[in-house]
Amino acid sequence: MRDIITILYNGFETLDVFGPIEVFGRLPEQFNPLFYSMAGGIITSTQKVPVMTQLVSELKSSRYILFIPGGIGAKEEINRGEFIAALRSLAGNAEFIITVCTGSILLSRTGLLDGRRATSNKMAFAWTRTAPSVTWIKKARWVKDGTIYTSSGVSAGTDMALGFIADQLGNAIAQQVSREIEYTWNENPGLDPFAELYP
Amino acid sequence: MRDIITILYNGFETLDVFGPIEVFGRLPEQFNPLFYSMAGGIITSTQKVPVMTQLVSELKSSRYILFIPGGIGAKEEINRGEFIAALRSLAGNAEFIITVCTGSILLSRTGLLDGRRATSNKMAFAWTRTAPSVTWIKKARWVKDGTIYTSSGVSAGTDMALGFIADQLGNAIAQQVSREIEYTWNENPGLDPFAELYP
Repeated sequence: MRDIITILYNGFETLDVFGPIEVFGRLPEQFNPLFYSMAGGIITSTQKVPVMTQLVSELKSSRYILFIPGGIGAKEEINRGEFIAALRSLAGNAEFIITVCTGSILLSRTGLLDGRRATSNKMAFAWTRTAPSVTWIKKARWVKDGTIYTSSGVSAGTDMALGFIADQLGNAIAQQVSREIEYTWNENPGLDPFAELYP
Repeated sequence: MRDIITILYNGFETLDVFGPIEVFGRLPEQFNPLFYSMAGGIITSTQKVPVMTQLVSELKSSRYILFIPGGIGAKEEINRGEFIAALRSLAGNAEFIITVCTGSILLSRTGLLDGRRATSNKMAFAWTRTAPSVTWIKKARWVKDGTIYTSSGVSAGTDMALGFIADQLGNAIAQQVSREIEYTWNENPGLDPFAELYP
């Protein structure tokens, strides 16, 4: 059993979070979704979803996957030293790290992506230029580098989460989850129909 | 501007709700997502997402879309007379009604689906036999009958929400939203690759 430590901030993107949580939450004997924020309490997505969170400072998980979603709010969080320091501390103890969309930009500020391959969402891909120590892969639904998985925008997180399940538990389990949620899984991380839509 | 009155109950299915909310929430000048429950307060999905809700009894919207998701919890809610009565009252004043997954079974108990065409999720399709006054369409990603949209399971709700946007605001807007969320939209309501997977 691994905790999924989901880091929320105001202005997170709704489906960045809940596509992967749907996938992980379908396997409750393997994964335990939890929601944290810097201040605790209610955190609201750009699409107005109010989610109850626990305080990051009170986190006690010992075996966990760190999950960093993206969203408009990332543009503010990236300038908050305390937030990035907390991410760095959490990332250092994580068994795996997964990011969706601009979550990879947030992770890049911790230094933990330096020298690694990663991707981000396609509409805001220009933002990756602010992290030149990372090898950014534009045409990718998601990228795995060691224990770090980064995905493209929003819906790509669902494909990545299923890819993570396939890597950890086998393709048959991932296929089973995708059928249960009636989701047509893009299981090829290199197949990215959105890479060419944005400059 | 229309409110999206989302009815939550413990044991709702995470992506049933947040796929459509991602889509509607992308058009904040058109749609205002709101979350309600019978008791108010925190309501938790099967995948452990705790969402803050308002009391249904305090709802004051005058122009709204009623959104009923499905989930394991529907098996308990369907036997609660107060819950079904509240749905009936809300549905009677709704401009449109949308359901995902077993949300259509809940709606069927109000009588408002009688004589209409509808669909539901494919794993639990046998449950539709308890509502013989409805014309259930098994092979459908979603079904539109007048002002009522019902979708198949979980991810089908995202396709339906984009279909609703296309009907109301034009296909170009729906396509734009699907590109923004890097989602490969199944825009054909009759194309249902999951209908044959379950008996």
